[in-house]
Amino acid sequence: MKTISAVNLNEKKLSQLKEKLSIEWSALKSRSCFIKGILQEPVDPRLYMLYMLQTYHYTAHNARNQALTGVIAKDVSPGYLKYCFDHAAEESGHEMMAVADLVSMGMTHQQVFSSPAILETDALIAYLYWISSTGNPMRRLGYSLWAESSYGFIGDVLTKVKGDLKLTARQMTFFDAHSDIDAEHAAEVDRALTLYCKTEADWQAVEHTMIGTLQMTERMLDGVWHTFNALRNGSALTFTFLDRVENLKDLGGVAPTH
Amino acid sequence: MKTISAVNLNEKKLSQLKEKLSIEWSALKSRSCFIKGILQEPVDPRLYMLYMLQTYHYTAHNARNQALTGVIAKDVSPGYLKYCFDHAAEESGHEMMAVADLVSMGMTHQQVFSSPAILETDALIAYLYWISSTGNPMRRLGYSLWAESSYGFIGDVLTKVKGDLKLTARQMTFFDAHSDIDAEHAAEVDRALTLYCKTEADWQAVEHTMIGTLQMTERMLDGVWHTFNALRNGSALTFTFLDRVENLKDLGGVAPTH
Amino acid sequence: MKTISAVNLNEKKLSQLKEKLSIEWSALKSRSCFIKGILQEPVDPRLYMLYMLQTYHYTAHNARNQALTGVIAKDVSPGYLKYCFDHAAEESGHEMMAVADLVSMGMTHQQVFSSPAILETDALIAYLYWISSTGNPMRRLGYSLWAESSYGFIGDVLTKVKGDLKLTARQMTFFDAHSDIDAEHAAEVDRALTLYCKTEADWQAVEHTMIGTLQMTERMLDGVWHTFNALRNGSALTFTFLDRVENLKDLGGVAPTH
Amino acid sequence: MKTISAVNLNEKKLSQLKEKLSIEWSALKSRSCFIKGILQEPVDPRLYMLYMLQTYHYTAHNARNQALTGVIAKDVSPGYLKYCFDHAAEESGHEMMAVADLVSMGMTHQQVFSSPAILETDALIAYLYWISSTGNPMRRLGYSLWAESSYGFIGDVLTKVKGDLKLTARQMTFFDAHSDIDAEHAAEVDRALTLYCKTEADWQAVEHTMIGTLQMTERMLDGVWHTFNALRNGSALTFTFLDRVENLKDLGGVAPTH
Repeated sequence: MKTISAVNLNEKKLSQLKEKLSIEWSALKSRSCFIKGILQEPVDPRLYMLYMLQTYHYTAHNARNQALTGVIAKDVSPGYLKYCFDHAAEESGHEMMAVADLVSMGMTHQQVFSSPAILETDALIAYLYWISSTGNPMRRLGYSLWAESSYGFIGDVLTKVKGDLKLTARQMTFFDAHSDIDAEHAAEVDRALTLYCKTEADWQAVEHTMIGTLQMTERMLDGVWHTFNALRNGSALTFTFLDRVENLKDLGGVAPTH
Repeated sequence: MKTISAVNLNEKKLSQLKEKLSIEWSALKSRSCFIKGILQEPVDPRLYMLYMLQTYHYTAHNARNQALTGVIAKDVSPGYLKYCFDHAAEESGHEMMAVADLVSMGMTHQQVFSSPAILETDALIAYLYWISSTGNPMRRLGYSLWAESSYGFIGDVLTKVKGDLKLTARQMTFFDAHSDIDAEHAAEVDRALTLYCKTEADWQAVEHTMIGTLQMTERMLDGVWHTFNALRNGSALTFTFLDRVENLKDLGGVAPTH
Repeated sequence: MKTISAVNLNEKKLSQLKEKLSIEWSALKSRSCFIKGILQEPVDPRLYMLYMLQTYHYTAHNARNQALTGVIAKDVSPGYLKYCFDHAAEESGHEMMAVADLVSMGMTHQQVFSSPAILETDALIAYLYWISSTGNPMRRLGYSLWAESSYGFIGDVLTKVKGDLKLTARQMTFFDAHSDIDAEHAAEVDRALTLYCKTEADWQAVEHTMIGTLQMTERMLDGVWHTFNALRNGSALTFTFLDRVENLKDLGGVAPTH
Repeated sequence: MKTISAVNLNEKKLSQLKEKLSIEWSALKSRSCFIKGILQEPVDPRLYMLYMLQTYHYTAHNARNQALTGVIAKDVSPGYLKYCFDHAAEESGHEMMAVADLVSMGMTHQQVFSSPAILETDALIAYLYWISSTGNPMRRLGYSLWAESSYGFIGDVLTKVKGDLKLTARQMTFFDAHSDIDAEHAAEVDRALTLYCKTEADWQAVEHTMIGTLQMTERMLDGVWHTFNALRNGSALTFTFLDRVENLKDLGGVAPTH
């Protein structure tokens, strides 16, 4: 009886969190210059590539920072530990899908691997390691909570990209695979939150991290937009190799003019 | 063709390693005062409990140090990363079997959780984190290689304990479960070694770690023996609570006389 | 001869860096809403307190992340190692000056210690650990390069605060002490850069970090400004305790009106 | 008054610890085959070199693990933090004295840098990182307590080596410098223990680490002895390059005969 109440209470907490998340996403989408840029203009392949390069960079750390939570966490249940490592295993190598998608658009592997991350991406990566290794050990779930369910919120963005750039599903494996995988992952995250969050402090830590990591992602997106504008204006000092990507001309969208 | 040769080569390397391991185990068994103590005298329940307490302590770190290898490893294949986290997930919570076995013999959970580790156990734990976080990222496989296949080598020791202390299979879950689980794990370790070791340096690192961690485990076993002797002689300063474990009298073996 | 040339070259690199830093600071000061808020309006004590609380939070990590550079750095000269630890020792406990300043304005120690950091401060802290533990081991010098010489750039801001809030030098120990200490530290940072940067990659890593950490600090400042505005507008959910700080009425500046 | 009592109490604790240390050293010296080997036989230069190589290996980590204590320690006074980093700065680069001494005896820098550590040395290094990064943050002082005052206990060993190998003071800089430096360091360690140990748990943690790290050092010494014997008997697989060190013949002691 008592356990059932506890589960009910946690389910209520979880749906409250998801409501807040929905509000955050709406605010983000109406605010973000990156999102507006994608939705309101014909998509320039360089903009999407810049974004996918950042996706490659931070995704390459996600399995590691997820596992780090388990390595560092003290006084957590073996079940939560197992969840951390299982989830880390599932995330391993996902950045290679971003690589494949970029290569399908004309970049070389070498160009992808040697590309720099923009500051905001590095800041997000650093922050993910930080929340994974300090403070309340439930914190990382706050990132998973929105990251594994983001396709519901950015579906219109991806559809616009796909249409404008005339990309096939095989050229968008990162998002295609994730929209399936992540439905499952999202259910696992829900279950983990309901099972392992025990205290009000746990839930607050999860909410704090959910909001924080989403905001840092928003900054990354807007950083991509600013970097793209510098590229478009010819004032960029980095990522100028994107102007010379071989198959770029074959892609739809706005062809770069310089 | 080339790949097949590479696999063949690695399989040869692997069987050479296993041969060396077999020789090490023989040397260890003929040398170790702990092993001789178990095999040549009626088993005192305190000796086995001391050993299981150490097993509890180091096992509680095995999932974590296994995952740490993946967190730290640079320039390894996504497959190896996934292996590290998968294996860590499988190892999560195994120390609870050691706890259950100790509790079945009359210890309280509190006694197990608050018991200290002996120096040699702490040294083994520290060394496992060390090899998991520095040097060649294949190193941790050298520990798994012998640890997951140890039941073939210490079966006689466990049989002697079981008979002398009249323990049921349900009181030896740690070893019972592991002899099954680990057969599977051992096959996974073999596969991981064959797949991910690419260079002579990888194999040497694995061998070095296999020998090193086995020797440190031998020291732990002998440390258990020395601690037990202090307990038996009445000169022990630690673990004296083992003399007062409630059901101890119901267990077979040598009843403590003081 | 050769060494002298190398030193000359490094001195040239250093002055080029400082020139870039000066340009960055000018841009930051003309851009930052926090800086404009301080310079163009009567200073509200809550704004300065909010800023000093963030200063307390990130400063509490500076000795640690500086030392971490030395703990992690591979293949660096013993001289650089010694510099890292010496500099960490010098930075130890500096956050206590921020605490003392806040207490002198009417906050309790408990209020300071239990206050949260805003997201942008946590992001800066996380990023400082990140650059201190990954990548080129010279990176942390890029942070020191601007942080130890910042008083030349923000002197007008501090003077405005001091005047508006009628603070004595004893209430601004953090900045008073630092403007002296840091002149010395800045010289040490210059010497360290000139001595230990050997390659073009080292200098680029230092520049990248100089710009990156300064930009993340700018975001922290602007985050302070936004948090203050929420407080001023009565829409803040955090830091509302600042409205009730006891001696606040005795301080100059704009008294809070709600 | 109260503070004075606390200091007196800590001074009493400290002298009790030193008494225990003295007893440990006596036991170690009467037990250690390495110490007996040095004192009772003409010293073979290879034995001393083997020992100095291990000294080189673990000393190269001492500044780092000392600093790590400060990086990791939570809720400690700024004074203790400063001590950790100051002490780390002082220890930085000391391994280079061991290198210089080995080079003065005929080894090349390359031979020193590429030499392996024996298992017991790696175990000591791993254990020092472990006690520096987990558990009671005062623990590392337990290592310093004996390490910085060891010259009083092993003076006879060093004198015997110096005489037998006809080494000058300039060839024993590691010990010569340390006997001076460490008198000062030992006083600093005493002061740190008296200032920063507050609770019985702190003192127990220090004692536990003092005994543990001394025992692991004893194992390292005995590991050196066993490695030397393998070398002397011609059965060694490692360190055989010591038989070919160029100036070895010019050193006193027993010339290698194979």
